Amino acid sequence: MPLLPNAVVAQSGGPTTVINASACGVIQTALASNKIGTIFGAVNGILGVLKEELFDFAAEGPDAIEMLRRTPAAAIGSCRYKLKDLTTSRSDYERILEVFKAHNIRYFFYAGGNDSMDTADKVNKLAAETGYELVSMGVPKTIDNDLAYTDHCPGYGSVAKYVATCAMEAGKDTEALYTTDTCTILEVMGRNAGWIAAATGLAARTPEDAPHLIYMPEAAFSWEKLVADVKEVHQRLGRIFIVVGEGLKDDKGNYVTADSGSFGKDSFGHQQLGGVADMLKVVIEKEVGIKARWNKLGTNQRSAMHFASLTDVNEAYQVGSKAVEHALAGENGKMVTLVRESGDIYTCTTGLAKLADVANGEKKVPREYINDAGNHITGAMREYVRPLVQGEAPITIGSDGLPVFVRFVRKLVEQKLPKYL
Amino acid sequence: MPLLPNAVVAQSGGPTTVINASACGVIQTALASNKIGTIFGAVNGILGVLKEELFDFAAEGPDAIEMLRRTPAAAIGSCRYKLKDLTTSRSDYERILEVFKAHNIRYFFYAGGNDSMDTADKVNKLAAETGYELVSMGVPKTIDNDLAYTDHCPGYGSVAKYVATCAMEAGKDTEALYTTDTCTILEVMGRNAGWIAAATGLAARTPEDAPHLIYMPEAAFSWEKLVADVKEVHQRLGRIFIVVGEGLKDDKGNYVTADSGSFGKDSFGHQQLGGVADMLKVVIEKEVGIKARWNKLGTNQRSAMHFASLTDVNEAYQVGSKAVEHALAGENGKMVTLVRESGDIYTCTTGLAKLADVANGEKKVPREYINDAGNHITGAMREYVRPLVQGEAPITIGSDGLPVFVRFVRKLVEQKLPKYL
Repeated sequence: MPLLPNAVVAQSGGPTTVINASACGVIQTALASNKIGTIFGAVNGILGVLKEELFDFAAEGPDAIEMLRRTPAAAIGSCRYKLKDLTTSRSDYERILEVFKAHNIRYFFYAGGNDSMDTADKVNKLAAETGYELVSMGVPKTIDNDLAYTDHCPGYGSVAKYVATCAMEAGKDTEALYTTDTCTILEVMGRNAGWIAAATGLAARTPEDAPHLIYMPEAAFSWEKLVADVKEVHQRLGRIFIVVGEGLKDDKGNYVTADSGSFGKDSFGHQQLGGVADMLKVVIEKEVGIKARWNKLGTNQRSAMHFASLTDVNEAYQVGSKAVEHALAGENGKMVTLVRESGDIYTCTTGLAKLADVANGEKKVPREYINDAGNHITGAMREYVRPLVQGEAPITIGSDGLPVFVRFVRKLVEQKLPKYL
Repeated sequence: MPLLPNAVVAQSGGPTTVINASACGVIQTALASNKIGTIFGAVNGILGVLKEELFDFAAEGPDAIEMLRRTPAAAIGSCRYKLKDLTTSRSDYERILEVFKAHNIRYFFYAGGNDSMDTADKVNKLAAETGYELVSMGVPKTIDNDLAYTDHCPGYGSVAKYVATCAMEAGKDTEALYTTDTCTILEVMGRNAGWIAAATGLAARTPEDAPHLIYMPEAAFSWEKLVADVKEVHQRLGRIFIVVGEGLKDDKGNYVTADSGSFGKDSFGHQQLGGVADMLKVVIEKEVGIKARWNKLGTNQRSAMHFASLTDVNEAYQVGSKAVEHALAGENGKMVTLVRESGDIYTCTTGLAKLADVANGEKKVPREYINDAGNHITGAMREYVRPLVQGEAPITIGSDGLPVFVRFVRKLVEQKLPKYL
């Protein structure tokens, strides 16, 4: 009997709440097929391939693999190692194929964003060029929701549900204590795309509700406009809750910094600042004369398994599972996409897009999802995000009252090649 | 038939996830008794009493009142208005009694921390002095858990559960991405007492688990020690997750600032910093040479209803309810306390402490709850906090996938006195 081809699964870039659910979909579907031999994990993404640091998922056991659905971040390990083009980084790409050959790896499942799709595509191209039979399939992953060719990205629904809830809850706090702590700023992730900030708009069911102002990089920002916006809300409600992404841009598309604009220059002087939220605080306190404070959820927003979207977890599993099904059915060089079907009730199926196309695309919040004033969302954005945050993903709670997550043993398989990196 | 005496309920200071559950306990128990007439809410704590801004809970309806159990922050409204002693702030205290008289208020239920217990006590003393029949009862509330005479404070169990879970989740993120993002710092609340930071220690089930280092104001901090601690963990695990309270103190009890200690001075230069976490980041990046980032949960930690401790919510309700029962049974000038019964299984009953005693007490994390190195907790702390984070409080989820909270109408009753404030 000839040896069955093996597969490798890797995770890349900033972790999300559900990238492990996608891995679970890949692994369980691959394990259930009779066409794949060993399913390896590459420790810390493409770094693990380059270093020949591979482990066998079968050795982790089915319970540990099932627990991936309930574990945030990247249990296989992630990395930020960036491969350049086939000319500049050729030795890296060649090394990847050497490792694949050494372990008879014929399937490469890579979960990540644009850069990872680019890597998977280039590995695939070099394989074709050199006559090595390989199937590379991409699994979309990013909280930033900025991948093209897919209606939305696994990971986004969970961060959306969490940050919207955080805006709602901290908004209640501001509402309770506005007589002294009048303004709260919630800084969320998203330097280039405002999808995460936009999601918090769902929390504002009425004009009284937080957030009252949302600033996204897609809408031109100015300090003068901020001060006017804050004064308007303050006059109307006596309190202000603001959501801001990490990146704000002016009308020329440049990032807003502490010394841009007249209020900016005047207010900051020579201060060094921690981030966008802190900049807003300084300007609001000085120019509006009210106390402002800020929360920065940081990596907690992309790992909040304790309040993840069930829809997101299920779709993340599905794209992983579909990647294997398509690979076994003869597809190659594609990323699985999420396709929102038309109709009154949200239904989502999957499709395929070329890795190269996804690698070069980018999806920002469309102008029609942002209000005319550029400081909140429209009904269209609400319609877009609402189905993505439905349901609460189950978690396992330990006897200590806290969640239980899985940590893989990741016992490395014997290395067959000389050390690299 | 003589008019029944009325009651007023007020909330004070920084909101918590469960202060509304305490209010629910007070209101439902008072409404169910046949000894109290109207139950007023004072908008924004003692400010609402001073301004004669009162509303009738009965008008809100039983469903809205029941929803208090599932709504974070302070639905009646809170404030930071500080009354001084009976000499300095005498006109304020007299005004409070005038408002009470004008509305036949004979029961004063005040939820808050030390300062609120002090206010309730002084109102009570002036009432006794001037012959106005009044019963003032305190309901403990603070995420800081620093009230004396009570085993723990309602509000603490929920923040403990949430921040420990956040440490666990963001710890997984750091574990996934440690090859570039090696160190994460989670800044939690607690300027004077380290109870909140200490609670995150529960997340460290094994030495591999986050948090690896916890710094509390009760243990002397130095930059030199920090650098040595971080190097040790980095060498052992290749990654570091640190929890730090807002306040850190050196061995002389002074707050640690950017220019204290040799590393401090050297590393900071003339930089302005956002907070403790940012100071740690600067020193770690410069002195250990690894990338550090930080999350600051801010007011989100004290309003995280979506993952509140059921034990905490129930106990918060109970202290509210007991305050009314004791008041009707003839107690006065007391705060309801939580009493942990001895035995293998956690059981908690209530007791009473004098308002004046609570007002002047403070409870820090005992030395035996902190390890010898002063950078983590002991088994005794785990035993203390574990029962407090048990169970997940139910919440209501709307059709938009987000929690539903209550907002009171707070229709003010007719004012009978001249304007004040």
